[in-house]
Amino acid sequence: MVGIIMGSDSDLPVMQDAIDILESFDIPVEVDIVSAHRTPEKLVSYATQAHQRGVQVIVAGAGGAAHLPGMVASMSPLPVIGVPVKSRNSIDGWDSVLSILQMPGGVPVATVALDGAKNAGILAAQIIGASDKCVLDKIIAYKEGLKLKVEKASERVKK
Amino acid sequence: MVGIIMGSDSDLPVMQDAIDILESFDIPVEVDIVSAHRTPEKLVSYATQAHQRGVQVIVAGAGGAAHLPGMVASMSPLPVIGVPVKSRNSIDGWDSVLSILQMPGGVPVATVALDGAKNAGILAAQIIGASDKCVLDKIIAYKEGLKLKVEKASERVKK
Amino acid sequence: MVGIIMGSDSDLPVMQDAIDILESFDIPVEVDIVSAHRTPEKLVSYATQAHQRGVQVIVAGAGGAAHLPGMVASMSPLPVIGVPVKSRNSIDGWDSVLSILQMPGGVPVATVALDGAKNAGILAAQIIGASDKCVLDKIIAYKEGLKLKVEKASERVKK
Amino acid sequence: MVGIIMGSDSDLPVMQDAIDILESFDIPVEVDIVSAHRTPEKLVSYATQAHQRGVQVIVAGAGGAAHLPGMVASMSPLPVIGVPVKSRNSIDGWDSVLSILQMPGGVPVATVALDGAKNAGILAAQIIGASDKCVLDKIIAYKEGLKLKVEKASERVKK
Amino acid sequence: MVGIIMGSDSDLPVMQDAIDILESFDIPVEVDIVSAHRTPEKLVSYATQAHQRGVQVIVAGAGGAAHLPGMVASMSPLPVIGVPVKSRNSIDGWDSVLSILQMPGGVPVATVALDGAKNAGILAAQIIGASDKCVLDKIIAYKEGLKLKVEKASERVKK
Amino acid sequence: MVGIIMGSDSDLPVMQDAIDILESFDIPVEVDIVSAHRTPEKLVSYATQAHQRGVQVIVAGAGGAAHLPGMVASMSPLPVIGVPVKSRNSIDGWDSVLSILQMPGGVPVATVALDGAKNAGILAAQIIGASDKCVLDKIIAYKEGLKLKVEKASERVKK
Amino acid sequence: MVGIIMGSDSDLPVMQDAIDILESFDIPVEVDIVSAHRTPEKLVSYATQAHQRGVQVIVAGAGGAAHLPGMVASMSPLPVIGVPVKSRNSIDGWDSVLSILQMPGGVPVATVALDGAKNAGILAAQIIGASDKCVLDKIIAYKEGLKLKVEKASERVKK
Amino acid sequence: MVGIIMGSDSDLPVMQDAIDILESFDIPVEVDIVSAHRTPEKLVSYATQAHQRGVQVIVAGAGGAAHLPGMVASMSPLPVIGVPVKSRNSIDGWDSVLSILQMPGGVPVATVALDGAKNAGILAAQIIGASDKCVLDKIIAYKEGLKLKVEKASERVKK
Repeated sequence: MVGIIMGSDSDLPVMQDAIDILESFDIPVEVDIVSAHRTPEKLVSYATQAHQRGVQVIVAGAGGAAHLPGMVASMSPLPVIGVPVKSRNSIDGWDSVLSILQMPGGVPVATVALDGAKNAGILAAQIIGASDKCVLDKIIAYKEGLKLKVEKASERVKK
Repeated sequence: MVGIIMGSDSDLPVMQDAIDILESFDIPVEVDIVSAHRTPEKLVSYATQAHQRGVQVIVAGAGGAAHLPGMVASMSPLPVIGVPVKSRNSIDGWDSVLSILQMPGGVPVATVALDGAKNAGILAAQIIGASDKCVLDKIIAYKEGLKLKVEKASERVKK
Repeated sequence: MVGIIMGSDSDLPVMQDAIDILESFDIPVEVDIVSAHRTPEKLVSYATQAHQRGVQVIVAGAGGAAHLPGMVASMSPLPVIGVPVKSRNSIDGWDSVLSILQMPGGVPVATVALDGAKNAGILAAQIIGASDKCVLDKIIAYKEGLKLKVEKASERVKK
Repeated sequence: MVGIIMGSDSDLPVMQDAIDILESFDIPVEVDIVSAHRTPEKLVSYATQAHQRGVQVIVAGAGGAAHLPGMVASMSPLPVIGVPVKSRNSIDGWDSVLSILQMPGGVPVATVALDGAKNAGILAAQIIGASDKCVLDKIIAYKEGLKLKVEKASERVKK
Repeated sequence: MVGIIMGSDSDLPVMQDAIDILESFDIPVEVDIVSAHRTPEKLVSYATQAHQRGVQVIVAGAGGAAHLPGMVASMSPLPVIGVPVKSRNSIDGWDSVLSILQMPGGVPVATVALDGAKNAGILAAQIIGASDKCVLDKIIAYKEGLKLKVEKASERVKK
Repeated sequence: MVGIIMGSDSDLPVMQDAIDILESFDIPVEVDIVSAHRTPEKLVSYATQAHQRGVQVIVAGAGGAAHLPGMVASMSPLPVIGVPVKSRNSIDGWDSVLSILQMPGGVPVATVALDGAKNAGILAAQIIGASDKCVLDKIIAYKEGLKLKVEKASERVKK
Repeated sequence: MVGIIMGSDSDLPVMQDAIDILESFDIPVEVDIVSAHRTPEKLVSYATQAHQRGVQVIVAGAGGAAHLPGMVASMSPLPVIGVPVKSRNSIDGWDSVLSILQMPGGVPVATVALDGAKNAGILAAQIIGASDKCVLDKIIAYKEGLKLKVEKASERVKK
Repeated sequence: MVGIIMGSDSDLPVMQDAIDILESFDIPVEVDIVSAHRTPEKLVSYATQAHQRGVQVIVAGAGGAAHLPGMVASMSPLPVIGVPVKSRNSIDGWDSVLSILQMPGGVPVATVALDGAKNAGILAAQIIGASDKCVLDKIIAYKEGLKLKVEKASERVKK
């Protein structure tokens, strides 16, 4: 199971891409709002307990001075994927990117592109696929699908 | 009393400036290492209890994806001053600055300049001075001292 | 009392958030336009006299080469909170942020996020709350309110 | 098994941290030089075959216009961790970071901090630990060790 | 002949400028979609074979972590012109620019301005013109035309 | 006469270039330390009186949140040339540049390159030369001298 | 007389502010389109002759890789004011700013804020005013006018 | 023949790489100092005449507000390769890069990486190779050599 959390429900339109792609791989997801800055107690209980109730990967999205992914990573032994969200008051997304990416030695966050929730979902599937042959095959099939779309576009452009 | 915390003892050479200036104002300080990412439980207990044992202002320094000032601010009702530290792996200090400054609405951190621990100490004194006439007078005297130094430099340059 | 000033009335839509949050805490505010570059004499008289007529904290907002917060800080012993405003000709807000944040040693400005006037208001309340139990309790209650909003959003998302 | 590759042997001093931390977890590693720009055929064979010979996670480090992690990710179904290296001609590391992080939808790279090879190794272990209880326990123990170091530093600072 | 490729058909509105200017010089073009990340096999066959079937210059456009121009350059002996495209999720174009420009020693990409496909087309013509007197004369005539347009604008402004 | 001021005597090594070049043009200079943040009263008296005692151009250098040039410009009718100094705590000089350059409408500062005090001196001479034929001729001669140096370097390189 | 030039008539809406403010000071202006890149011969004749036909100050606006102000400065002994224009393909204005501001030693350009044509006009007037008492008085009056506008805004806000 | 020019002899240590690599391909080079800002007449004569005396490609290196490559491109029909040099006063190389790369429509400069003179030389060879089978074969051989170096490094690392 993949746990998907975000700092505010205003991040949901971005984070929905992670939910959709994981559901397309038939991987169960658990979605919640956990704010590092407004619900710090919930942050602690979420991060310390997730691996105990079967979550294998956590996807965390946040914007601005984005502390949610890093703080979850500090308290959970699970791999944490961070999605920098270009929120309304962000300085062109640089704050979101740097405050998720530049974690100190010992506490990694697997950071994806700005607003890259779809890739966060695929990466979560790949992490599960690293030890689950069935999910690995779905990823191989997904990548074949990407190829087909480009080939169709190639034909359209050549005409 | 002012609580001064930092994410790692490698931040101490920078943060010492805050300690020194506060001691020169005869304001008692309490110094500790609290790492948001490596000691999250200590972070919670420090942030939730500081105001109960007489701390009036918290000065927190950290570098890189610097979450310490913001996380303390999320759990304490006290004013929190954040010092972005240009640590070894920082990208020219931008990560430290942005991950402290760009806090979301509701949870401010009073951010000072990169490696600006001295100013953090002065600001802490000014906050206490806002309701303590004796400290306010020391600040007024300190600012007079700054003026004198510039005047001496002015005389040297004119010669 | 909190003094709220800004460099131009075009900054008022941003700075209104500081006024509103302070009024919600029943803290009296005094609002004025003081331009460092167009009314320098008024800047001097404002900054040198504010603490003498009962102002405890100054909140100053400005954009571009934003000199108002730093210049007020240079002439007042009070804590000065700077709000970088992303004005029309600003280079994505970087000029506003850096010209407020990067003050030299001796003259701090407590800088908040770009357009972060709401947080400036909360920080001003926290500064007063550092020595006023009644205001401190209001801040504790305000933070509880933030938590409730997130919990409601959490419930909506889970459905 | 974790595959660790880098674009040039000049990246080895940085990437050694990933090797060391994985060996401290008793996770076997396979190290090689694969240059996206100078050995593109080797890149193709490495990326397409790694999952078939038992590699579960790939860690790829590169600097400047760093294409190695993204190109491996385009041809392998495995999770790929990218380490932006601040190489000699890099523009302060920004080129390394952005050309690894900002992958298009469909092809994620799990990016860590600039020169963050140690965290890449820990993340690789966490990915294996997501389905291997024994490795998960080692990570939990490792995080306890981080805490102890901070506590010792805390005691030194208090003295 | 000039080969014009791009990573996605969403890049076509930008890249059309290269096609148009080359057609205005009567230089034949061959247009295709080749995605470094979604069709890596096609990338290999395109890059290794282009010079064998008469292509003299390759123009490659891509956005975000833009690997197409550099990867083609790694496998082709031809001059490769890179067009950084400001795609939807790009961080203001910086990622596109840096991941094309900052190629390592040994594998150059001739980079033009952000969204500068027109200049890429002119540069391709200049490269052919370096050994083709007829094309060189067309470029000289084209530059005369630029001059005339400015002179007309000059007259309008003076009125 | 040209007035040359700077925020701190630590700026003198940079600002000396302005003094030297103006003296080589036989233009009298008046040098002083005026700190916007530490001697605001001196700033006011300097800026409001300079034009009354014969100063024609003001050159002002400062670093970090550099307010000196803009504040002098706000109170003086004279042309003010700003020199952004890359001081010790500056963020790579960006703060110095932006806080001098990005002045609001109505109050210009003629900004030169980072640490470009020599150019500030030449620009001051050009401003005087705009109405003083003798100084204009010296500038024409100076530019001839630049040409000769390049020609000598050209001959050395050709050998 | 002030010469106002720009690289393209698309810069006219920005540059019009310089024309308007100078006309309000009754200073004659001469406006033309001179493109460094498309009419280099005109650039040479303009720059080398302007001071001979009575121009005292040159204002030059350009965007992107903006070479017009610097190239005019290289060939004219007059003070040259550069206006960085945020043109359509500019990277947020950074290219315009840096390619005008960062001139090498010996050839200054007096740079104003991004799109700051109004300030360029005022600066041109101040340069003339440095030796023309009548223009100096107009600038003093203009600055008084700025003050009045702020005072009116102040009264509106206080109500 | 390839013409290699630079703005100052201080750029020679960087630009030597272009000379060396071209000489290793037995392509004749002509080296000179041409300063856009200090020898504008020489710039005009160089740029307008180069193609008439047999130069096929121009490589131009410059730093800071780097106008040499773009100005040569404006006056020559030949392909111009620009090398951004990280000169002493450059702001981390950003000014050099942007003032060469961001040329307006109509006047391309083929830009290579910061200090990337070696790649400029290779690109010049590739441009000649686009119509010269003998040079093309040398480039193919050169790329094979790159591959061998990586393979040797790979063997060293595996041991």
